[in-house]
Parts: sequence; C-alpha cells; structure tokens
Amino acid sequence: MRSQTISKLAAAFRKLPGVGPKTAMRYAYAVIEMDKEQSDNFVDAIIQAKAKIKMCSICGDYTENEICELCGARDKSVVCVVSRPQDVIAFEKMGDYNGVYHVLHGELDFQKGVGVDNIRIKELLDRINSGGIKEIIIATNPDVTGELTASYLAGIIKPLGVKVTRLAYGISIGSEIEYADELTLQRALQDRKEL
Amino acid sequence: MRSQTISKLAAAFRKLPGVGPKTAMRYAYAVIEMDKEQSDNFVDAIIQAKAKIKMCSICGDYTENEICELCGARDKSVVCVVSRPQDVIAFEKMGDYNGVYHVLHGELDFQKGVGVDNIRIKELLDRINSGGIKEIIIATNPDVTGELTASYLAGIIKPLGVKVTRLAYGISIGSEIEYADELTLQRALQDRKEL
Repeated sequence: MRSQTISKLAAAFRKLPGVGPKTAMRYAYAVIEMDKEQSDNFVDAIIQAKAKIKMCSICGDYTENEICELCGARDKSVVCVVSRPQDVIAFEKMGDYNGVYHVLHGELDFQKGVGVDNIRIKELLDRINSGGIKEIIIATNPDVTGELTASYLAGIIKPLGVKVTRLAYGISIGSEIEYADELTLQRALQDRKEL
Repeated sequence: MRSQTISKLAAAFRKLPGVGPKTAMRYAYAVIEMDKEQSDNFVDAIIQAKAKIKMCSICGDYTENEICELCGARDKSVVCVVSRPQDVIAFEKMGDYNGVYHVLHGELDFQKGVGVDNIRIKELLDRINSGGIKEIIIATNPDVTGELTASYLAGIIKPLGVKVTRLAYGISIGSEIEYADELTLQRALQDRKEL
C-alpha cells in the first residue's frame, strides 16, 4: 500500500544518527508536505555541503577552504586533540581557548578494527615533528575508546619532548554530588585541589 | 568559525518536525560524513518524492498514481475519515479494515485559522453526494481539534442520511488503570459494555 518512493525517502532518513523507522517516516511525510521552495532548499543544502566541505589540510576540521579559519589565526604552539569536528564547536562555544585543534576523526577501537592508521594520528605526529608545538592537550572523550586513544597518544608524543596534558575529570558544574556516578566521584576525589 | 554551508544544511534539517539545533547539527555532520553514494541517494530520494507523490484524487492519501491502490480495491461503501496520511498507515497496519479512507489533511482549528474550507471537507461531501456510501467512520484524533472536526462532520453528514460512527474511546489494551488519565477513564466508564 505504502508508496515505494515514500519508503525510499524514509530509508534515506534512517541513515541519519538516532533515526528509527517511525521518525524516518515522519520526516519523509514532512518533506512531502514541504512547499517546493523549502524542499529545493533542502536538496541544495545537501548538494552544496557535499561539494564544498572538506577537511582542513592542517587540523582536519571541516572547512570550505584549504586551511580553516582557526588554523590561519590562532596560537599554533598549543594543539587541542579532539575526536570529532563537533568537539571543536563545543570548545569554541566556551570561548576560552586560543590555540589550534587536531581532529582525529575517530578514536582507537581495536574491537571495531579502528587502529592507529585509521584515524589522523600520523598527521598529528607530522605536525609535531615540523616544530613549533609546545603543548598537546588531549581532549578525547572520557570513555573506553577515548581513554585508550589518549594513553596511546601520550605514549608516543611524550618521547618527542612535547608537553602532553589532558582535560581535568571531575564533577560537572551545576550537578549534584548525590547523583554523580562513582567513577566521576572517584576521579574528583583523586584530583582534589587545595583551597 | 562554523562554515556557512554547514549552517545552511543544519537550518534545512531544522524544518523537520521535532528537530532542534543540536540534532540538526548532528544530522548535518552525518551528511558530510556520508559517502557519495549515500548522499546522492538521499538527494535523489527527496527529489523523487517531491516529483512523484501526489494526493489520490478520491481519498487524498499520498500515492504515485491518479487513484491510490486502496481506493481501487476496497469496499467503497464504508469510508474512514482521518486527519493525516500517517493515520491510514496505522489502520492498515492493524489490517482489520476493508473499507476506504478519506484524508482531511488537517483538523478544524479556528484559533489557528484552519476553517471548513482549509481541509478536505468539501471533497468528502462530494463523495457522499455521489452515492454508494453507507457509513462514515470518523477517526480524527481524540483531542480538541479532532473532536471539533468530528462533531462538525457528524452535524453536516447525518442530515444526508448516511450512518456516522466514531472510534470507541476507552482504556488502552495492555495499559494499567492506575495510570489511565481521568478523561479516558471517564469515557471508558460511560461506554462500559455488558459482559
């Protein structure tokens, strides 16, 4: 009964992260109900993004140019290493960081076959080897793959004579200690600071 | 810092129902990370849907043909009136209904300026007037606008000598009475059946 064309559109939406069959169908109907200008706009936005967006040849963040705006303007002696381009947005929202980034585009995950050659580690080492970098801040996610990636990177970067740091772990600002998970609380206790 | 092109793509996703800024950005990044085949597929699915999908000239459901499959095959003496094409899918999933549908494409909502001429009521009356219909089952949503639409339709259809029914209200199968809302419980009590 349901049209092939609608099913195909819903199937396309299911490729997006977190979209199940019901949501996909809801999106498909929404597209069918859009006026032509809106749907043309949608199609054009996808085509333009696929055509124009590439990785910055230095940091790997998404950009429309050969080198991204941040790599062109910031203090190049401090490099914050993140897993994904979205993490750059989080840092930039905070606004307190004036260094540059290095986007790995993934985290080491040997079980899923993501090894050292599958994420942008070689590119990071090349940046370090070409000189001028004083500190590498590792800001991978505080989970298994993120920790693994962080400790691997620390192990290969430290011998190069560059300072390696990682983000502090601890209780979130505005959260309640009652609801903090045990691991986070443990880290917060270990890393306690004198007042 | 963030590319215009990515922002535009995220803005396009925000036109979808229930998509906020964070989800839209997540979808935009997912599209950028798709391989070319997948994104071409996505674009093509939208273009095809917009080009091929139209309303069935009888019932108003979405179809790729002049008349939808259901209108061509089913018992035309019983018509189930629903608000949206998605509701047809819910009925067809159930599989217990052998009549045809009439999709209103909306519900009366005078506060939002949706009046009698803005939804497919005239088309429904035309169908009734052209003869052969014995029963109209009203299956608009059990909320304010759905109830308003249902009572309006009942008021204009009954004088035409056609039986008008509505779906039963009551407690959901598998639910717990403890958690039923008061209105539903009230309706279930009013409409109680002898065993």
